[in-house]
Amino acid sequence: MADILHRVGILSPSTSEVYAALSTIKGLAGWWTIDTQGDTRAGGELRFRFGEAGGFDMKVLELEPSKRVLWEVTGGPAEWIGTRIAFDLKQEGDYAIVLFKHMGWKEPVEFMHHCSTKWGTFLMSLKSLVETGKGAPHPDDVLIDNWK
Amino acid sequence: MADILHRVGILSPSTSEVYAALSTIKGLAGWWTIDTQGDTRAGGELRFRFGEAGGFDMKVLELEPSKRVLWEVTGGPAEWIGTRIAFDLKQEGDYAIVLFKHMGWKEPVEFMHHCSTKWGTFLMSLKSLVETGKGAPHPDDVLIDNWK
Repeated sequence: MADILHRVGILSPSTSEVYAALSTIKGLAGWWTIDTQGDTRAGGELRFRFGEAGGFDMKVLELEPSKRVLWEVTGGPAEWIGTRIAFDLKQEGDYAIVLFKHMGWKEPVEFMHHCSTKWGTFLMSLKSLVETGKGAPHPDDVLIDNWK
Repeated sequence: MADILHRVGILSPSTSEVYAALSTIKGLAGWWTIDTQGDTRAGGELRFRFGEAGGFDMKVLELEPSKRVLWEVTGGPAEWIGTRIAFDLKQEGDYAIVLFKHMGWKEPVEFMHHCSTKWGTFLMSLKSLVETGKGAPHPDDVLIDNWK
């Protein structure tokens, strides 16, 4: 098993605005993909789409306001199915810290390398959304390689 | 053991320019830190410094022109000592692909999360350097959190 890890710090007086960006359709559509739909409640299913590239379905496993969001991947590329994605939040001074884990990859395949870098750019998009009001969700996302 | 993985694709007709950016002082200083010194040959030691934040010493373990660069960390934060950093290069159409691995972290500590995101931004700096002639090395690097 292998995990993708990231840490970003977002200039914000509390973690509540970051939590909102992770637990509402409007928030998620502001930094990951504008084509976000579904039920944001615990037990609900979220559908994230990226045009012709397809997308991901996530079951919301845990929601702890201002502290934690945990999803399980129920639809998407074979390598993603059954993996889990956690966002743990805490405040350190002026920064709301996001500790990100995409856990449970069976093998460290090349696609995992791509997804790691891509998650990094999307978390910087989350940071930008909360700090400036404007993120870079698909289709305006930062392109990192020939897999986009 | 845990590894940081990344993949970037750089618009370039071959991997040779990317290899130069990974195996010369001028190249490394153009995307990681302007304060890069040392002996770039196999068996040599490189010194990367980031002002007050300190830096890293790397022993060059392998150099395979246009294909691979492998370093071992000999100086720097305790968590980094003994870890290895590999850049594997290949051409796919218009893109020179960089597969990056920072291997052998003893534990997936919070600092590893930070370093993963930070490596991602520096690899995007490498991409920018080769594609446009201008990277974002320290002290002009992209800041990701309260640890910079």
